[in-house]
Amino acid sequence: LNLAADCNAVLKALQPIFQEQGMTETVHNWEDHGYLATYIKKNGSFANLRIHPHGLVLVDLQSYNDNTKGREEVDQLLNKVEERMKELFHGNIKRVKRLPAILRGGVIDRYWPTADGRLVEYDIDEVVYDEDSPFQNIKILHSKQFGNILILSGDVNLAESDLAYTQAIMGSGKEDYTGKEVLILGGGDGGILYEIVKLKPKMVTMVEISFASNIDQMVIDGCKKYMRKTCGDVLDNLKGECYQVLIEDCIPVLKRYAKEGRMFDYVINDLTAVPISTSPEEDSTWEFLRLILDLSMKVLKQDGKYFTQ
Amino acid sequence: LNLAADCNAVLKALQPIFQEQGMTETVHNWEDHGYLATYIKKNGSFANLRIHPHGLVLVDLQSYNDNTKGREEVDQLLNKVEERMKELFHGNIKRVKRLPAILRGGVIDRYWPTADGRLVEYDIDEVVYDEDSPFQNIKILHSKQFGNILILSGDVNLAESDLAYTQAIMGSGKEDYTGKEVLILGGGDGGILYEIVKLKPKMVTMVEISFASNIDQMVIDGCKKYMRKTCGDVLDNLKGECYQVLIEDCIPVLKRYAKEGRMFDYVINDLTAVPISTSPEEDSTWEFLRLILDLSMKVLKQDGKYFTQ
Repeated sequence: LNLAADCNAVLKALQPIFQEQGMTETVHNWEDHGYLATYIKKNGSFANLRIHPHGLVLVDLQSYNDNTKGREEVDQLLNKVEERMKELFHGNIKRVKRLPAILRGGVIDRYWPTADGRLVEYDIDEVVYDEDSPFQNIKILHSKQFGNILILSGDVNLAESDLAYTQAIMGSGKEDYTGKEVLILGGGDGGILYEIVKLKPKMVTMVEISFASNIDQMVIDGCKKYMRKTCGDVLDNLKGECYQVLIEDCIPVLKRYAKEGRMFDYVINDLTAVPISTSPEEDSTWEFLRLILDLSMKVLKQDGKYFTQ
Repeated sequence: LNLAADCNAVLKALQPIFQEQGMTETVHNWEDHGYLATYIKKNGSFANLRIHPHGLVLVDLQSYNDNTKGREEVDQLLNKVEERMKELFHGNIKRVKRLPAILRGGVIDRYWPTADGRLVEYDIDEVVYDEDSPFQNIKILHSKQFGNILILSGDVNLAESDLAYTQAIMGSGKEDYTGKEVLILGGGDGGILYEIVKLKPKMVTMVEISFASNIDQMVIDGCKKYMRKTCGDVLDNLKGECYQVLIEDCIPVLKRYAKEGRMFDYVINDLTAVPISTSPEEDSTWEFLRLILDLSMKVLKQDGKYFTQ
C-alpha cells in the first residue's frame, strides 16, 4: 500500500512539470507494476515517465532535430524533475544519473558497440570509406579523438591512434630490430610492418590471409588509402627493400619455413584476438592458438622472441 | 500526402507484431510529425514505436528485470519488425541499427560518459571504493577489461590498464632513467613514480597538490589501497630510497628550484590535460600551461628532456 501511495505521490509531483510544457498526458496504471505516463508535445517530441513500485523512476525524452535550444530545454526540464524528487523525498535519493542523448537516424552513426556488447559512442565526424566486399562491410570513419577508424562488419578493428598497440606488440620500445629477421603473422593493416621497417631490419616477412584474420583485398585497399598514419606506404607494394608481404595462410608458410630451417629473431603474432569470455572457449580456438605457437617456436632462433596480444 | 500514407502503412504493418504479444495500444497522430504508438504489456514492460514522416522509424523497448529469456523475446520482436519493414519497402531501407540495451537502476552503474559527453559503457563488475571527500566523489570500480578504474566526480581518471599511458609519457621505453634526476609534476595516482623507481634513478621528486590536479588525500588513500597494479607501494610512504613526494603546489616549488639552481635530467608534466575543445580555450588555461613550461625549462639541464601529454 505504501509503495503504491509513493508511486502515486511521484506521479502527482512530476505531472505539473510536463503539463507546464503544454504536453498532453496519457497515464497507464498497472496493478502491480506502477505507472507509465506519456507526455506528447505539439512539435513531435514526447516524454515517458516510468515509475516502478520499488523506487526506480525513469524519464526518457525523445525529440527530433537536436539543437542547443532543445538541449537547454531538456536540461531545464530534468533539473525540475530532480528538484521536485529531492523535495518529495527530502533529499533521500540513492542515485541520480543523466545519460547523454542517444542520436539516431543521422547521416553519421556514432555508436559502435564492443565485441562483448557494450554501448560505445565515438566522436565520428566523417564517413571516409564505406564499401561492401564479398566478405564483409568495410567502413573507415574519422574520429576527432582516434583519427581514422577501421570498422569491419560493425566491429571496431583499428584506429590511426592505436600506435600504442603496435608499440606494445613490438616490445614497448625495448627491442632492437636493426639487422634482424622478423616474421609477422597477420597485421593486415600494415601498422606493425610500417613501424618495424623504420627500424632498419634485415628482412620482415608479413603473412596475411583473407579469411582467417578478417582481412581481404578491399580492406588492404581501404587501409593503404585512408589509414596512412598507420601503414605509411608499406602496403602500396607487397615487396620493399627489407620486407615482403605474403598473401597466404600462415600455417602452411610456417610449416614450410620450419622444414626449410628458416629462422627468425622475432615472431609477432597479430592474428585475431581471442575475445574475453566467461564461458569455456571452443576447443578449436585453443587448438588453433596452440598450433600457431608450436609452429612459431620451430622457426624461432635460440635467443629469438615471440610477441602476441 | 505520400509521406503521410507511408507513415500509416508502417503503422499498419507493425501493429500486429505488438498486438500478438498481447500489448495494449495507444496511438497518437500528429498533423505534421507522424505517429507515436505506445504498446503496454501486463508484466510492466512497454514499447514506443515512433514513425517520422521523412522515413525514420524508432522502436524503443523498456522492461524491468533483464534476463536471457527477456532478451531473446526482445530479439525476436525486433527481428519481426525488421522483416516486416523490409517486406514493406522491398528491402529498400537505408540503414538498420540495433543498440545494446541500456541498463538503469542496477547496483552497478556501467555508464561513464567521456569529458566531451559521449556515452561509454564499461564492463564494471564490482564497486571497490565509493566515498565522498570534501572536494569530490571518489569511486574505484573494477572492470574486467581495464582492471580497477579511478573515477573522480563522474570523470574517468585512470585505470590499472593504463600502463601504456604511463610508458608513453615516460618516452615509450627509449629513455634510460638509471642514475638520473627526475621531477614529476602531478601524477598523484603514483603510476609514473612507480614505473621510474623500478629503473634505478638517482632521485625522483613528485610534486602533487590537492586542488589543481583533482587529487586529494582521499584519492591517494584510495589509490594506494585499490590501484596497486598502478602505483605498487610508492604511495605507502611519501619518501623512499630514491624518491620523495611533495604535497605542494608545483609552481612555488619550481620557482624555488629555479632560484636554487636545482637541475633535472627529466621533467614529466602529468598535470590535468587540456580537454579537447573546438572553441578557444580560456586565456587562463594557456597562461597556466605557459608558466609551467617556462619554469620547467629553467630547471632542466642542457641535455634534459621534458615530457607531457
